[in-house]
Amino acid sequence: MLNVLVVGSIALDDVEAPAGSAKSVLGGAACYFAVASSFFAPVRAVGVAGNDFPQEHLDFLEGRGIDVAGIHRADGPTFRWGGRYHESLNRRDTLFTELGVFEDFEPKLPEAYRDSELVFLANIHPSLQLSVLEQATNPHFAAMDTMDFWIEGTSEELRRTIARVNCLIINDEEAQQLTGESNLVRAADWIRALGPETVVIKRGEHGALLFDAEGIFAAPAFPLREVRDPTGAGDSFAGGFMGALAREDHRDPQAVRRAVIYGSVLASFCVERFSLDRFRNLEGAEVDARFEEFRALTRF
Amino acid sequence: MLNVLVVGSIALDDVEAPAGSAKSVLGGAACYFAVASSFFAPVRAVGVAGNDFPQEHLDFLEGRGIDVAGIHRADGPTFRWGGRYHESLNRRDTLFTELGVFEDFEPKLPEAYRDSELVFLANIHPSLQLSVLEQATNPHFAAMDTMDFWIEGTSEELRRTIARVNCLIINDEEAQQLTGESNLVRAADWIRALGPETVVIKRGEHGALLFDAEGIFAAPAFPLREVRDPTGAGDSFAGGFMGALAREDHRDPQAVRRAVIYGSVLASFCVERFSLDRFRNLEGAEVDARFEEFRALTRF
Repeated sequence: MLNVLVVGSIALDDVEAPAGSAKSVLGGAACYFAVASSFFAPVRAVGVAGNDFPQEHLDFLEGRGIDVAGIHRADGPTFRWGGRYHESLNRRDTLFTELGVFEDFEPKLPEAYRDSELVFLANIHPSLQLSVLEQATNPHFAAMDTMDFWIEGTSEELRRTIARVNCLIINDEEAQQLTGESNLVRAADWIRALGPETVVIKRGEHGALLFDAEGIFAAPAFPLREVRDPTGAGDSFAGGFMGALAREDHRDPQAVRRAVIYGSVLASFCVERFSLDRFRNLEGAEVDARFEEFRALTRF
Repeated sequence: MLNVLVVGSIALDDVEAPAGSAKSVLGGAACYFAVASSFFAPVRAVGVAGNDFPQEHLDFLEGRGIDVAGIHRADGPTFRWGGRYHESLNRRDTLFTELGVFEDFEPKLPEAYRDSELVFLANIHPSLQLSVLEQATNPHFAAMDTMDFWIEGTSEELRRTIARVNCLIINDEEAQQLTGESNLVRAADWIRALGPETVVIKRGEHGALLFDAEGIFAAPAFPLREVRDPTGAGDSFAGGFMGALAREDHRDPQAVRRAVIYGSVLASFCVERFSLDRFRNLEGAEVDARFEEFRALTRF
């Protein structure tokens, strides 16, 4: 089994959704990723939290076996994000973004993290993502996410960083924006030509598409009777995906496809409750059971 | 092997899409359905064409082995539809709808069609759909489609017709509109409670979801590098689905799931060219090969 490093945001979120609302709850890409990944492999987290960040959240991460030595406590407010979901849940409005201590985040890998084997660069400035890669001495497999803000504003740096990772995990709309291709197969071709041999395009409630040397693999999203809060689904997907790859310790096409399904499993649990709450009492047996449900869902 | 009856529109379409345009080309739900279905089973078509409808289109249908005795030639113009697709292809504007002879369409089954075994009621007035069911003496399996216009304007008649079929095949947005449920699992529950034991929700480029007593089955759309014209994809899906069911002559859960994949195969070929052009030289071996590609696309 390999270990997994994640670098990204740690946040306190306000979320409004048709099913209810939550105020000042644990959020941030690094948290969703780390907890999802922790169901499969040892995880190390790098991020910054303000002095208002409740200790209980760090205790929760540590309770999941996550190494939080890389989470820096800075003097100032924690990154706060607020969003409101529409009835359909596939659209949301950002109500506020208060960067706080995240504004000056410069990821530093603790010495003990430098030998990390799987590396996930969550959505931060592409030059910071690159600096993490340069601090890692010998990553087996590096993946990254990004967002519209960096695609628009830092496209040169972003391309340089993408060229250095093994895998880009990105939303469909962002893939289209990045590549100028509305067709996702051509968008994935474009990205793979830049460097990453593996591309995962996330499509929210429609699942995910994997593109690699073997071809294309389509994973549905798990059909749920109730989705309460879609926040963090993409990062939980990435966490489950990378965690499953770390647990298997090999990356042949079938292992990568199983990892896509494990990512989909973790994303499906994530959205059942607000914040990371569903992960608090999630059992490994439930993860395995839903993986098998994915077989029934797709077998013909 | 069973036979398949389709009742629906016969049209001449004008289509504008990013990849090109086509004027006054063969279209209509009954034509797409019948030709897709003809790759699997004997098909009988009921519809109305105007006196401007080119004989070559009827010759094409007959050349595919389709029984066109139920296609009535009326005095007046053929139904004409014009649409323009956006760059993303999942949105389109209707440019015009000229019903012509389709306005007074009252489907009459020729005597020889009354014993039809599989029946597909394409998108027409729900009372006309019901009248077809009442003319069929002993259908083994009846399925139907509908659209927003009937959901809004004839909701009582529509519910009565839905209650009489075995299977509703419907778009995601229309399923949400019909049921008032934004969640598709709950929407399918609602529809199944009305009568149909099987529900297929079509999601365009995102594939299709099947709901039946066995559970849920998710089929992706086949990822194509180029989609030229999405017109008729849904009807081609329904044609492939019903045709495959007719060919197998049983409807256990695995047969129904394979049929969903065959529907997806035919829809994927449909959109590769304008109008029904891709079907003109499509070989059975290509259909089988793409079915196998669907296995590779979904296997883990």
